[in-house]
Amino acid sequence: MKLAVIGVGLIGGSFALALKQARLATQVVGAGRSAANLRLALERGAIDSIAPDAAAAARDADVILVAAPVAQFAGIFASLDLKPGAIVTDAGSTKRDVVAAARRALGPRIAQFVPGHPVAGAEKSGVAAATAELFRGRRVVLTPLPENPADAVEKIHSLWSACGAKVTRMDAEEHDAVLAAVSHLPHVLAFALVHEVAGRPNAEQLFSYAAGGFRDFTRIASSHPEMWRDICVANRDRLLGELRNYQAKLAELEKLLQAADGAGLERLFGEAREAREQWLKRSS
Amino acid sequence: MKLAVIGVGLIGGSFALALKQARLATQVVGAGRSAANLRLALERGAIDSIAPDAAAAARDADVILVAAPVAQFAGIFASLDLKPGAIVTDAGSTKRDVVAAARRALGPRIAQFVPGHPVAGAEKSGVAAATAELFRGRRVVLTPLPENPADAVEKIHSLWSACGAKVTRMDAEEHDAVLAAVSHLPHVLAFALVHEVAGRPNAEQLFSYAAGGFRDFTRIASSHPEMWRDICVANRDRLLGELRNYQAKLAELEKLLQAADGAGLERLFGEAREAREQWLKRSS
Repeated sequence: MKLAVIGVGLIGGSFALALKQARLATQVVGAGRSAANLRLALERGAIDSIAPDAAAAARDADVILVAAPVAQFAGIFASLDLKPGAIVTDAGSTKRDVVAAARRALGPRIAQFVPGHPVAGAEKSGVAAATAELFRGRRVVLTPLPENPADAVEKIHSLWSACGAKVTRMDAEEHDAVLAAVSHLPHVLAFALVHEVAGRPNAEQLFSYAAGGFRDFTRIASSHPEMWRDICVANRDRLLGELRNYQAKLAELEKLLQAADGAGLERLFGEAREAREQWLKRSS
Repeated sequence: MKLAVIGVGLIGGSFALALKQARLATQVVGAGRSAANLRLALERGAIDSIAPDAAAAARDADVILVAAPVAQFAGIFASLDLKPGAIVTDAGSTKRDVVAAARRALGPRIAQFVPGHPVAGAEKSGVAAATAELFRGRRVVLTPLPENPADAVEKIHSLWSACGAKVTRMDAEEHDAVLAAVSHLPHVLAFALVHEVAGRPNAEQLFSYAAGGFRDFTRIASSHPEMWRDICVANRDRLLGELRNYQAKLAELEKLLQAADGAGLERLFGEAREAREQWLKRSS
């Protein structure tokens, strides 16, 4: 199988390394914006050759993974010249906008595009952080299209399975709703807290008393600003809905605090802790 | 030095273990609500004997650490029968309420109370998790009173230093303001997010797609509900102020999302990431 990876960063690089390790990709060609990153991908053995652009990388490939920032997808899709039977998939964190962009750019060839999202974010980026083990035990969500032949979906499913991922399928609507709640909202909340503290006259003092709890809570505020800009804009209707739900919960907490309602606070905290412990138990 | 520890949990047990390791405490007596926990403290060598109550533990001690839940402080302080020259300190996460309770209970003996707060929370609790290394490199804030003799403050300062802590001093007002921003608010935000998700009809599905970012963000939502109830009630004026600041920041983000203002979002995320990276650099 000839694999093309457009955007050989943490995700694209790890996918290539995992499929090479599983001996499923015999030849990997990479394309991307940063020549230095592509050279590093070559050195690390994630790719075997560098193509000048996405179109050149994809021309001869059996499978094409688009793992560039989502804002570049439309241009990349439009440039692709796919051979018959080739399958394009992607690693975008939002799916409705990616599907819409793919439909516009690919036209009747949309059947060749199987949308996907490896839920394996890390605040690190670039191929330097890539590893064949990145997806082991992690979720990959495929959001297949009605036009996709079953064997094309199966092919992409099996490749992610070979990376060690737990692959599930849902439609793009559901994907964007679920991820808004458990990924996009927490990221925005973490960015907001750090930004709020950083804007204070005594920010340096405040940070100097922040401990491990603050560090973990805000870890995702070290995520890539450009990537999170694209996710937030693409999924803003769902994210705004989640933000409103969350603000309502904060208003509930505010009332408990104003009333100095210790029993109510302890109940809410206890229910939250219990729900989290149950989740950790199920997911371990 | 004879040390009494009232409440031999994670904090009290770790303080005792560290001072024994530093050979500064020759004899440690413990008191607390849970007989099983006290027996474990004895087995683990954190304490040498068990007293039937706080008063009995403190009677003969040179230094008394009150590390019970803050809601019990008033009763504990009122029961103490201190020998001359004995110094009482505490590990409460809020300081204005603790100082007020101590003033009411100790009366003229307030000079013998040096308030403190080891900023070394962990979602674990109980002496089982205690370790002599818990405070190494962590902050301990003392909030001395005008009545405290300088040598009493110095004594408590030196004991925490011997535990490896970075000890600083400020007044109780400032302490509660700083901790509201970088500790109490994040805890409340994490509890709120988990509670919000857990209340959904599809909570189980949502949790099943939560990844590492969500796990870290919500780690502090596994903290002790009773302890956090007390902290929130005691510091509710400051916490409410922080909650309002945060809600204003969320409203700012909401506007950017509504306007699909990608540049504005990227700027905010980038500033937050930069502030966090700078903090990590300074604190490493």
